[in-house]
Amino acid sequence: MEILKQRILKDGQAIGIGILKVDSFLNHQLDVELLNEIGKEFHKRFSDVEITKILTIEASGIGIACMTALYFNVPVVFAKKAEPSTMVDGAYQAKVHSFTKNKDYNISVSKKYLTQSDKVLIIDDFLAKGGALQGLEDIVRQSGAQLVGAGIVIEKAFQEGGKSLRDKGVRIESLAVIQSIMDNEIKFY
Amino acid sequence: MEILKQRILKDGQAIGIGILKVDSFLNHQLDVELLNEIGKEFHKRFSDVEITKILTIEASGIGIACMTALYFNVPVVFAKKAEPSTMVDGAYQAKVHSFTKNKDYNISVSKKYLTQSDKVLIIDDFLAKGGALQGLEDIVRQSGAQLVGAGIVIEKAFQEGGKSLRDKGVRIESLAVIQSIMDNEIKFY
Repeated sequence: MEILKQRILKDGQAIGIGILKVDSFLNHQLDVELLNEIGKEFHKRFSDVEITKILTIEASGIGIACMTALYFNVPVVFAKKAEPSTMVDGAYQAKVHSFTKNKDYNISVSKKYLTQSDKVLIIDDFLAKGGALQGLEDIVRQSGAQLVGAGIVIEKAFQEGGKSLRDKGVRIESLAVIQSIMDNEIKFY
Repeated sequence: MEILKQRILKDGQAIGIGILKVDSFLNHQLDVELLNEIGKEFHKRFSDVEITKILTIEASGIGIACMTALYFNVPVVFAKKAEPSTMVDGAYQAKVHSFTKNKDYNISVSKKYLTQSDKVLIIDDFLAKGGALQGLEDIVRQSGAQLVGAGIVIEKAFQEGGKSLRDKGVRIESLAVIQSIMDNEIKFY
């Protein structure tokens, strides 16, 4: 997605080896016009499949998921983060390892909002080592719903998350795929 | 806002005295068509003022803020929650007391994304005792930006948050104002 790549080059901060900050438009401040274009693009890429629900994870996935859901005309469900000790009644749960913060946390989704008849599109801002996406995939599997695919805004292809999930058969559409971040320079595929 | 009130009566869960759960359409699962109507309504109510930025707080404010921002054509900034011990460089911070969880947490917004020249509309899902809204108001004040007002989806008027913020001069527009929740029955103003 060309306007996204240009925006990453213009406003993203490449830091050292492998780190990219995009909090001026995607993670903390949100450019909703860009999010709207992102939603439109996900709709185009997944126009060949039926989708009944969009699943994301708090917090930075929510805006993107909402814009995408407008095009599909389906509800969003966002997984909530909680400490691993917190048990939640009536919820699907999965453990996620955050490599950024080097700790585990649980995510949960109420059983009321994902059912066997759902066809689920997962939406998230980043795919790097794949911790969050694997947790969401786990939750969809527990619910018995069909995982139609995952729409990712920025994939760091030099980390293993994308490969390991594609190897499991998950269809992933990433709008900007980064080959490397080195010496503060970003290279896309 | 009539369709919102009808939806609260239809799908909200009034629990005992004073508790309302709306996680089937506003807090966990998100009805984005309704959120879109909510955004349109906030735009109508604040059409008389200039707004350059929408400020909200993770996580459940984000979807509503994004839909509203589409109508105003301005960016969203969401305050991040962190433990009170976490110090964040280059950020405005405020302490918020959560009455639901009975603990304090800090919220923070990067100084890069709120400036003296901003005219800020705060958007949030609930206003009850006013903890979150007071924290956001505090952050706007620290930044030197102008607080234009606050758009709230559901205000529990039987709690003191709305009064204390209006007494401070904050313009608040609430789309559904609840007079009481008793014996599992919701009464609106």
